[in-house]
Amino acid sequence: MSNRADVAIIMGSDSDWPVLMDAAKVLDELEISYIADVISAHRMPDEMSLFAKSAASNGFKVIIAGAGGAAHLPGMVASLTTLPVIGVPVPLKNLDGMDSLLSIVQMPAGVPVATVGIGSAKNAGLLAARILAVSDSSLSTRVAKALTDLNLEAKAKGAKLQASRDQKSGF
Amino acid sequence: MSNRADVAIIMGSDSDWPVLMDAAKVLDELEISYIADVISAHRMPDEMSLFAKSAASNGFKVIIAGAGGAAHLPGMVASLTTLPVIGVPVPLKNLDGMDSLLSIVQMPAGVPVATVGIGSAKNAGLLAARILAVSDSSLSTRVAKALTDLNLEAKAKGAKLQASRDQKSGF
Amino acid sequence: MSNRADVAIIMGSDSDWPVLMDAAKVLDELEISYIADVISAHRMPDEMSLFAKSAASNGFKVIIAGAGGAAHLPGMVASLTTLPVIGVPVPLKNLDGMDSLLSIVQMPAGVPVATVGIGSAKNAGLLAARILAVSDSSLSTRVAKALTDLNLEAKAKGAKLQASRDQKSGF
Amino acid sequence: MSNRADVAIIMGSDSDWPVLMDAAKVLDELEISYIADVISAHRMPDEMSLFAKSAASNGFKVIIAGAGGAAHLPGMVASLTTLPVIGVPVPLKNLDGMDSLLSIVQMPAGVPVATVGIGSAKNAGLLAARILAVSDSSLSTRVAKALTDLNLEAKAKGAKLQASRDQKSGF
Amino acid sequence: MSNRADVAIIMGSDSDWPVLMDAAKVLDELEISYIADVISAHRMPDEMSLFAKSAASNGFKVIIAGAGGAAHLPGMVASLTTLPVIGVPVPLKNLDGMDSLLSIVQMPAGVPVATVGIGSAKNAGLLAARILAVSDSSLSTRVAKALTDLNLEAKAKGAKLQASRDQKSGF
Amino acid sequence: MSNRADVAIIMGSDSDWPVLMDAAKVLDELEISYIADVISAHRMPDEMSLFAKSAASNGFKVIIAGAGGAAHLPGMVASLTTLPVIGVPVPLKNLDGMDSLLSIVQMPAGVPVATVGIGSAKNAGLLAARILAVSDSSLSTRVAKALTDLNLEAKAKGAKLQASRDQKSGF
Amino acid sequence: MSNRADVAIIMGSDSDWPVLMDAAKVLDELEISYIADVISAHRMPDEMSLFAKSAASNGFKVIIAGAGGAAHLPGMVASLTTLPVIGVPVPLKNLDGMDSLLSIVQMPAGVPVATVGIGSAKNAGLLAARILAVSDSSLSTRVAKALTDLNLEAKAKGAKLQASRDQKSGF
Amino acid sequence: MSNRADVAIIMGSDSDWPVLMDAAKVLDELEISYIADVISAHRMPDEMSLFAKSAASNGFKVIIAGAGGAAHLPGMVASLTTLPVIGVPVPLKNLDGMDSLLSIVQMPAGVPVATVGIGSAKNAGLLAARILAVSDSSLSTRVAKALTDLNLEAKAKGAKLQASRDQKSGF
Repeated sequence: MSNRADVAIIMGSDSDWPVLMDAAKVLDELEISYIADVISAHRMPDEMSLFAKSAASNGFKVIIAGAGGAAHLPGMVASLTTLPVIGVPVPLKNLDGMDSLLSIVQMPAGVPVATVGIGSAKNAGLLAARILAVSDSSLSTRVAKALTDLNLEAKAKGAKLQASRDQKSGF
Repeated sequence: MSNRADVAIIMGSDSDWPVLMDAAKVLDELEISYIADVISAHRMPDEMSLFAKSAASNGFKVIIAGAGGAAHLPGMVASLTTLPVIGVPVPLKNLDGMDSLLSIVQMPAGVPVATVGIGSAKNAGLLAARILAVSDSSLSTRVAKALTDLNLEAKAKGAKLQASRDQKSGF
Repeated sequence: MSNRADVAIIMGSDSDWPVLMDAAKVLDELEISYIADVISAHRMPDEMSLFAKSAASNGFKVIIAGAGGAAHLPGMVASLTTLPVIGVPVPLKNLDGMDSLLSIVQMPAGVPVATVGIGSAKNAGLLAARILAVSDSSLSTRVAKALTDLNLEAKAKGAKLQASRDQKSGF
Repeated sequence: MSNRADVAIIMGSDSDWPVLMDAAKVLDELEISYIADVISAHRMPDEMSLFAKSAASNGFKVIIAGAGGAAHLPGMVASLTTLPVIGVPVPLKNLDGMDSLLSIVQMPAGVPVATVGIGSAKNAGLLAARILAVSDSSLSTRVAKALTDLNLEAKAKGAKLQASRDQKSGF
Repeated sequence: MSNRADVAIIMGSDSDWPVLMDAAKVLDELEISYIADVISAHRMPDEMSLFAKSAASNGFKVIIAGAGGAAHLPGMVASLTTLPVIGVPVPLKNLDGMDSLLSIVQMPAGVPVATVGIGSAKNAGLLAARILAVSDSSLSTRVAKALTDLNLEAKAKGAKLQASRDQKSGF
Repeated sequence: MSNRADVAIIMGSDSDWPVLMDAAKVLDELEISYIADVISAHRMPDEMSLFAKSAASNGFKVIIAGAGGAAHLPGMVASLTTLPVIGVPVPLKNLDGMDSLLSIVQMPAGVPVATVGIGSAKNAGLLAARILAVSDSSLSTRVAKALTDLNLEAKAKGAKLQASRDQKSGF
Repeated sequence: MSNRADVAIIMGSDSDWPVLMDAAKVLDELEISYIADVISAHRMPDEMSLFAKSAASNGFKVIIAGAGGAAHLPGMVASLTTLPVIGVPVPLKNLDGMDSLLSIVQMPAGVPVATVGIGSAKNAGLLAARILAVSDSSLSTRVAKALTDLNLEAKAKGAKLQASRDQKSGF
Repeated sequence: MSNRADVAIIMGSDSDWPVLMDAAKVLDELEISYIADVISAHRMPDEMSLFAKSAASNGFKVIIAGAGGAAHLPGMVASLTTLPVIGVPVPLKNLDGMDSLLSIVQMPAGVPVATVGIGSAKNAGLLAARILAVSDSSLSTRVAKALTDLNLEAKAKGAKLQASRDQKSGF
């Protein structure tokens, strides 16, 4: 069965969705098509394998995989596809996501995972956008605009801080 | 194809063998049959899946899996079999095996891995023996003897230290 | 005095029970007999020793031991029995259970503890079940069913996420 | 001034080259054009800014940036370009690269860096290849072949281990 | 445009202000002029560069820079000015500021950042005061008085504790 | 001026008192005389020096010193007296007391601090009691009784757990 | 059987002796009697229990216990005696002794271990001396002299550094 | 006794000199006067106090203090002077200087230490220079030149790398 989305957002558990939805939001804003699904490396190993092996032929171009603890999902998917896989370390109850980060980023030579910060699904979405923009100049323009908007937003915050303090920074 | 060994020692890379061979040694001493092979979760995902799924029907009773870094092998195998899986965190060049330990031990609820200390393959072998001895009283006797030998060996070391210092501890 | 339970769940303090009861629950579900008791390595060293030495002759086959901080209970029990001992690192107020984990898993060569994740008593119960299932094909079937249920449950969560988003993932 | 290379490998110091050259090797193997240069965020901030701002118009498609300690290079470059930036944490004399890893991966929302494992420049090269392969089916084939070669190599190592032990694993 | 303040307090985001305002308070108390503004290394790289390069000619003598996570602001500013730069690691949601601390303090040889404790903006303000007092004997007197006040305040707390316990320490 | 207390409980700040009062409680229970006071190494260095130098001649026999963060109090006092100094690492807002622990325990050769667990002031009180009991057989009996009470209390908790589960552990 | 030594130095393995002998040296220098022996908590649990329970009646006044990894020896001994127990965390091959430190220092309320720095057996010896000196004024004088010698030695080092640089510090 | 040096480099032990001499070298290069001496907080507490209290009146303007482990020297000196104190965490045998870093940087509110990277004495020297340059425009010029030299040196390294690879980066 064919698929029209460029990005697949997958996660080990639906409890990861509150974190991963930030990736979905930014893809919406950048007009990038995606699907989101629960695919657990440990609870759905066969479905995970099937998904990963057919991801390219199903039309996906980038995969965003979020998981916590012994977070095997991003790495296992990366071993079963040649698509770029972005890993999002989800912080669990203990260890502040340090276990998730190390389990995702410390991949053996041969199978890379593009890891973003702990809980930083927004950046996973933006990284997917930058990857897709390599061959999509229209998207590249939207990514550039998002960076500019970020700049304007940051400057506005500074101005607001100045105003609240009735101060003028002079630079 | 059938198999006669009770324990499978698998590892992510042949570079893990110098660590894992301590498990093999202790199994030899305790007269437990085993095989040893390289099965990488990331470089051989399909072979890994096949191995894990058929491990029980192939006659294995316990699996010892060693891996380093983002060490996915023990956890992935555990998700594909109902046999007890013992994980050995192999220390790599950086981080002293802390990444390996967390990647192996912090499994999600539902899929347990019996984790031993960093680089502690001897204990993996002994744990496999304890597990098999639950239903093998002859092996149980050999495991008990190994524990006694350990005690005698430790006492001999103490006596030697006493002698070298020409001292008598009095207890 | 004889005992009919296959598994002993012991813990350093009754404050560990809210964590350890997840092991009890899973043993109930899998129809495995067990008892639960407070046995502190530091506050009840003689009782701990007596328990550990007589555990096998009392009919226990697997011991689950939970403790926090300088968590000596699993390791000390393992040094006094030949039964497989499963250690559950209980997180205390500080350090997120990292002290508990290292105190349990980093055992010296000769005395293994099968360590599960921080606070992960459910996995301790499941590991006990896998160990007992090595020589109990009926239990093995129940363990396999639990793994299948886990898979179904995970897929249902994915379907629910799909439905809530009015989306179809196509794989 | 125009440039014909698809990938720029930049590093904070020439002492990072022994690590980063693994990225160059894999790009060579996959027939991907690249340049390598020293561009320090702290010692060459203006050159760094100029490089990053003109990277896209100079024809680069992916940037690999390696740095150690307070490793600001990947993150600063990512803030000045819309190209995907791959960060390689280089381990220095102390802390085993943990400082480098956190300085690279923990980027604020808005500016992603695709981080690979500590010292893992080979994976940086492979990730660049996967990114470029999204829009280059010929490269995609070469990336797939590299994954297959990895699989064959791993299996050969297993066979060699079997042979050296005069053993047959039976799976 | 000229500036009359001796100290610039800059931060990566307005969400850092609740932390950084402790620096402002202490500067107020010590009658040191300052401005406060949002200047993000990652979201405002050009503004950051312009600020840093012109800071000395704009009359600033010390810069206090607070940031969290991959906290590049203090280090980047320090690479673009010869003024002393004080870095304040701001703790974010995860990791308790350990990432911020390492990203700020582990600067390469050649570009120093004067790092204070995690979240310790008050000490950043006091350090700025000590630096300015090197060439300002009047300020030096006020800094000395603050240290004396600290001493008196601590002793008062001790006396209060004594009183509440109806006890006399005898020293 | 003379003093009649055997133990001095000192702390860097009155905010440490909620932690340190556990030491006071246990000393009360064991009928050991003590005083409690705020003596900050950093805010009251001269008072700290005076206190430490005169502690022995003032009749103190053991010093309990609690501090957090860069916790210099126990170590500095230990360098200025020959009395045994017990250090209590107080956890602050960040880092869970790991900074306090390392700052207290990692003393250079020549100046020991008897460090107890993070926030574990009760154990500091008990350690002081054990030290004083070396030459006080009556106190030694009370310390032994406290250890017995601990044992009884732990067993009662176990019995209560048994009762609540209507279960009999059989050991 | 009676014993004449004041201090018992015990260790989990004879491989700990190169670390622990620093405690012996300092006790020799301070003319304190001691014995040294191997007593492993895990390999000699019964001997350990017997030793700890009879330590006081055998005449020991202080126990120094060194161990590495899941270092249970100091804590277990402390739970079986009322004597003060000094724990020395011995660093093993991995983790730099952090596991040893946490396993020793993080004891539960009720059973204190006086922990010194990682590998810092000299300080264990000095701490034993300070404890014994509480009721031995002659020893107290020797401990004070050791502290003075330390001071003189440190000053001599400073003078030597001055001389080698042909410099005069002026303070 | 008067002193003509602007900077005092002090260290806890002469074994710290191989690290601290990098500070001396950079001060030499920048023509800043300094002295270097061993002043241990723990072994020379009175000399340390005397030094710190008289540092300002002796003419010092900045103090560089290096220490390892429970590194109390920088913080104690800072509590006894109003001069800016720069702390250099010296890595010891274990823990890679993480203990030194936390002991130096995590100072309580009121007493700041300007901390540089682990073992980074060169940056301590440069930071002292920047502080002195606030009121010394001639020195400010030399500091600026050092920064320019650093830039030239870094660019030369890049050119050398280019040449060795017979490559032209095009930016």
